[in-house]
Amino acid sequence: MIYLDNSATTKPYKEVLDVFTKVASHYFGNPSSVNALGSEAEKLLNQSREVISKLLNIHPSEIVFTSGGTEGNNIAVKGTALKYRSRGKHIITTTVEHASIYEGYKQLEQLGFEITFLPVNERGRISIDQVQRAIRKDTILVSVIHVNNEVGSIQPITEIGEMLKKYPHVLFHVDHVQGIGKVPLDFKRSNVDLCTVSGHKFHSVKGTGFLYVRKGIKLEPLFTGGSQENSLRAGTENVSGIVAMTKALRMTMDHQQNKIAHLTHLKNLLFQFVEKTEQTVLNTPKEWSAPHIINFSIPGAKPEVIVHALEEHQIYVSTKSACSSKQTSASRILLEMGKDERVAESAIRISFSAETTIEEVKKCMAVIEDILQQNKVIMR
Amino acid sequence: MIYLDNSATTKPYKEVLDVFTKVASHYFGNPSSVNALGSEAEKLLNQSREVISKLLNIHPSEIVFTSGGTEGNNIAVKGTALKYRSRGKHIITTTVEHASIYEGYKQLEQLGFEITFLPVNERGRISIDQVQRAIRKDTILVSVIHVNNEVGSIQPITEIGEMLKKYPHVLFHVDHVQGIGKVPLDFKRSNVDLCTVSGHKFHSVKGTGFLYVRKGIKLEPLFTGGSQENSLRAGTENVSGIVAMTKALRMTMDHQQNKIAHLTHLKNLLFQFVEKTEQTVLNTPKEWSAPHIINFSIPGAKPEVIVHALEEHQIYVSTKSACSSKQTSASRILLEMGKDERVAESAIRISFSAETTIEEVKKCMAVIEDILQQNKVIMR
Ligand SMILES: Cc1ncc(COP(=O)(O)O)c(C=O)c1O
Ligand SMILES: Cc1ncc(COP(=O)(O)O)c(C=O)c1O
Repeated sequence: MIYLDNSATTKPYKEVLDVFTKVASHYFGNPSSVNALGSEAEKLLNQSREVISKLLNIHPSEIVFTSGGTEGNNIAVKGTALKYRSRGKHIITTTVEHASIYEGYKQLEQLGFEITFLPVNERGRISIDQVQRAIRKDTILVSVIHVNNEVGSIQPITEIGEMLKKYPHVLFHVDHVQGIGKVPLDFKRSNVDLCTVSGHKFHSVKGTGFLYVRKGIKLEPLFTGGSQENSLRAGTENVSGIVAMTKALRMTMDHQQNKIAHLTHLKNLLFQFVEKTEQTVLNTPKEWSAPHIINFSIPGAKPEVIVHALEEHQIYVSTKSACSSKQTSASRILLEMGKDERVAESAIRISFSAETTIEEVKKCMAVIEDILQQNKVIMR
Repeated sequence: MIYLDNSATTKPYKEVLDVFTKVASHYFGNPSSVNALGSEAEKLLNQSREVISKLLNIHPSEIVFTSGGTEGNNIAVKGTALKYRSRGKHIITTTVEHASIYEGYKQLEQLGFEITFLPVNERGRISIDQVQRAIRKDTILVSVIHVNNEVGSIQPITEIGEMLKKYPHVLFHVDHVQGIGKVPLDFKRSNVDLCTVSGHKFHSVKGTGFLYVRKGIKLEPLFTGGSQENSLRAGTENVSGIVAMTKALRMTMDHQQNKIAHLTHLKNLLFQFVEKTEQTVLNTPKEWSAPHIINFSIPGAKPEVIVHALEEHQIYVSTKSACSSKQTSASRILLEMGKDERVAESAIRISFSAETTIEEVKKCMAVIEDILQQNKVIMR
């Protein structure tokens, strides 16, 4: 099997599953229980917090464990909006956010919030200037995706964060779900207040993630109840999932620079292929893009047909982002980048993990070439 | 080890962990991906829905997978409140709800909702009459815990549901987290609209659960984003967790009546012990209580001291509910039941699983007897 859909989800590392099983069977106590089994479980949570905070240069108390990226994004945006709505009801974001950010704004608009959606350029990027010009007295939040999940464009997070230092009444949230392990981000240096991470994108199990909440930042919780996670996220903690995610993060951050170099090499191979192939159009920008995502179109082709043709060779890629892939319309992101309808409707996304090999990418390219040559593609 | 804190959390069944690992390693695709790995994962989700719906006599589309009981309760109450607030802003509940219900009302009150908290009798119960008398034109929701997590009292859910048929504008939510597998509840016959279940209370892994949402009921989601779970709960599904929970539920429902009979036998043993022991006061009502929870007090004793003394014999019990156990004050539930401060401050909760043996319970009783006789208890 050649798995090239790592932006949708990754295969959990074997070591991660081993840790999960070990914790679930031997340390199954409820961290909130007063007995020793509870304390043991609580200790594991604390250790996980320590490890993650060291890896990311943050404080252990700044980590709120969640069930994934969608939860993190929802807590960050809605939690801020509800907490600070007496201060202001204006939020700044981009037109290329993930659905887990984007869709929430509809609810907020109904509650009287006003959202400024900054348009992106042809590379899928916004500028620091655009953000600055959009700031108002009643702006409470700027929320920007770090690495776009469909095309891999990178936003200038550190520069936006620097600029926002002049506006201390504005919180800064970053959706770092596609960035972690692939496009390093220093939360502190980038002046980030809130940052979303999802475990299943870096070889942890599904149902894990965390939200970085900078010390001193208050949020209205979505889940109220017990006082877990500083009362920011009530509910019995998924202890085995959290410890497993910690293991996955540690493994991901290990030799990170080498992995990024390897991914970049793979990406360049595929870039060259797409550029030299007549029927394909590259959508991922050549500069300011993540090393693991390559998006290209085959105008006139139905992308599902390509996906299924590759599948016959046990090669797994995707069309747009997973969570919108079942809607057949054109990619919202590509349209926002100014691509025409035919391009936006025929996109293929290939996404690597650090485990992807050169041979796998070469095999994938050869099969795509074959498919195109044999004209298997059903044109419209 | 004698684990008697099953109301806080249970040990996952080995078979459940095996299923988890198998799915996480072989069916790791994202159910929303268009490729075959995605479809396989989606199929597993659908199969899980089928199995659970058959076990509970509901429709597959009525299941919304969540990360646990706290999430389910929060979606149910806040989702209803936000969806129907133009219809009315009155909610009826009891004074003995779990924190994951109770704490949310503070947020709702700030949003202009009015909550009626029905007081319980000395057995921790409300009456159908109380509910009916509290209903107003602007009532949108009645939310009642089925089995109380601290003392095990059972509320008359089916009777309340029957009565509520006369009030079609009022939705009925039940927190069934402690009931499932131990106190059967027919969702349909009981006219329940929303029902919360949490996986880790019946030997599934933590981070799993579901909310039953009766067909036709609309809710405002807490997590917006992708269209997973009928758009009621966005986010990449925890596929391996869901399949594992399904396995756990199947195993739990297997020979359910025999298990309940066994639990009841254990409970009666402990009841007799508490009653014949001079220093102890039984808090769990003898009638209308679940078979797996026994709560008693040792007035004058610090319950933590008892917990730790039992721990020395590898026996694990708890004080109050796990999520409030770190607060040292008296039990809110026991005070609501009319117990005096000394009783409410010194409660011990013992909770069984179907795996608990008679020998384990006898050993626990013997050790408690010892502790009491040796006067190890530090009196105040
Ligand atoms: C950029 C981005 N943000 C958020 C999410 C949502 O994360 P999760 O799948 O863990 O809910 C995803 C993945 O789907 C993503 O790619
Ligand atoms: C009655 C009741 N409701 C809700 C919950 C919350 O469930 P979870 O621990 O899965 O968040 C619990 C358990 O803590 C409970 O006992």
